Amino acid sequence: PAPDSAAQGLALARNGQLTKPPGALGRLEDLAIWLAGWQGREKPQASAPQVVIFAANHGIAARGVSAFPPQVTAQMVANFRHGGAAINQLSRTFGASLGVHALDLDQPTADFTQGPAMTEAEVVSALATGWNAVDPEADLLVTGEMGIGNTTSAAAIAAALLGGNAQDWVGRGTGVDDHGLARKAETVRAGLVAHADALHDPLEVLRRLGGREIAAMTGAIARARMERVAVVLDGFICCAAALVLQRLHEGALDHCIAGHVSAEAGHGRLLAALGKDPLLALGLRLGEGSGAALALGVVQGAIACHSGMATFAEAGVSGA
Amino acid sequence: PAPDSAAQGLALARNGQLTKPPGALGRLEDLAIWLAGWQGREKPQASAPQVVIFAANHGIAARGVSAFPPQVTAQMVANFRHGGAAINQLSRTFGASLGVHALDLDQPTADFTQGPAMTEAEVVSALATGWNAVDPEADLLVTGEMGIGNTTSAAAIAAALLGGNAQDWVGRGTGVDDHGLARKAETVRAGLVAHADALHDPLEVLRRLGGREIAAMTGAIARARMERVAVVLDGFICCAAALVLQRLHEGALDHCIAGHVSAEAGHGRLLAALGKDPLLALGLRLGEGSGAALALGVVQGAIACHSGMATFAEAGVSGA
Repeated sequence: PAPDSAAQGLALARNGQLTKPPGALGRLEDLAIWLAGWQGREKPQASAPQVVIFAANHGIAARGVSAFPPQVTAQMVANFRHGGAAINQLSRTFGASLGVHALDLDQPTADFTQGPAMTEAEVVSALATGWNAVDPEADLLVTGEMGIGNTTSAAAIAAALLGGNAQDWVGRGTGVDDHGLARKAETVRAGLVAHADALHDPLEVLRRLGGREIAAMTGAIARARMERVAVVLDGFICCAAALVLQRLHEGALDHCIAGHVSAEAGHGRLLAALGKDPLLALGLRLGEGSGAALALGVVQGAIACHSGMATFAEAGVSGA
Repeated sequence: PAPDSAAQGLALARNGQLTKPPGALGRLEDLAIWLAGWQGREKPQASAPQVVIFAANHGIAARGVSAFPPQVTAQMVANFRHGGAAINQLSRTFGASLGVHALDLDQPTADFTQGPAMTEAEVVSALATGWNAVDPEADLLVTGEMGIGNTTSAAAIAAALLGGNAQDWVGRGTGVDDHGLARKAETVRAGLVAHADALHDPLEVLRRLGGREIAAMTGAIARARMERVAVVLDGFICCAAALVLQRLHEGALDHCIAGHVSAEAGHGRLLAALGKDPLLALGLRLGEGSGAALALGVVQGAIACHSGMATFAEAGVSGA
């Protein structure tokens, strides 16, 4: 589905009548007009966003690619459920609902250097979990993730679909040292070699090199498009999930904006490949949807201005 | 007054125990620790910020330095009072109180190319208005402004206190054309020549080249320091008001952060001179405190994480 161009036109006309010099709200103006199109109304809303987090475990975690042990995935899911994580605080701050989906945590994906990470049934199940997690009534969607080892999986997806060397796409994730970083690059390299026959097929790349939480985000972002729910993309892993859709269909991410650029090494380049200019650049590298949730504040500010400001005529203010 | 280093130390220690990899919240972590110092508590708050707007008129407006006529200042003050401006929507979005102070709108400052913009009594009165406008109980302060012609006055202050040519500091403000821009530069140049004997004295520069709303912001930012209320600086004009304090006393702006960098040409350079790295860069150029108010969302997100997250011990999460 495409945005509602009539609503977008009304929003554009409204924007030109608000009590401010033309263009003086910068990117806030573009945000409001873009969201008007996806929501199909002249005055969009951003007061009821949805944050969904998907969590899963990775076979490659056994290769020493993370600073944290794999059991942290389940521990952090418990932390999300008890309200103790960063994403809980950010969701509450910006009035977002928060859903947490743990995908077979006791069953890590297979080590992708040895074979496909997931079977077809597994990747379909993960895509469906994401698809079904989206609230069609939400104003905006944020998809977040938790999964020890998943920056390595995301780097493998990015390298597979965009080219470049393994070391161009790996970063320090939760904070690996130089040896960990070398292991990440070696793992990505081995994965690209093992699946060289499938790198032209985005869904096969997702199945072979991805993870359940990544596939779930892909499914959620696709469902959001079907429902015309606009999406605020989070960091490197979320953008790798989104990249799968963009490679399947140019324009598949027109309903998405980039919430932030993270400190993870490859994220800026990945955003450039997606053609997305991030709203924030504050050095976050946490995942969980945290950077996108923080950007909800900017979107809410933009929508409040667009939908709440008086026009020149209403306020009796002289034009330029 | 200095920040409370004990509270800052407690906040730093707490930050290291929260359920996230060290440093993973990037600048949000620095914000929380900085605010802990100024608020004197391990867990700072940001739920009750104050926005104050000061409005005034400028003699130089008659020189054709703005895209809008001078009566817009009073019209926009009415718009603020009726809730129709951008700053009203942003203040409401982030839970801030909003105060509007109109300073002798029917009495513009004198044209600073012909003599001092204000008498000593006038500048003292404006400083006092700002000083008295600050709520000592506020969690954070945003100072905003409205005043047709005031980017020219701010450019004159910046050029006087930081050097450089007039054209280095003037920009398009609310949207002047090339002829307007040339008139702005010529006005600044004439002001610098007329007051060449006083450019070493920051308060004299404020009196001679500034305006009532600019002096009021200077007074408010100084009062905030006395009360240890942290300040989120807005755009070019707000930063020119702050610059006066920094030139009076190195470190006078340690209680201030830069909310955003605006599209106004000289703002990035002015922030660099203040040593401030802006939180947002979204192309705003509206004034009213709008960029700083938008940045309140980022600060609130930072504080929510710092003050609300579980520690590793509380959540039973394994460390790296």
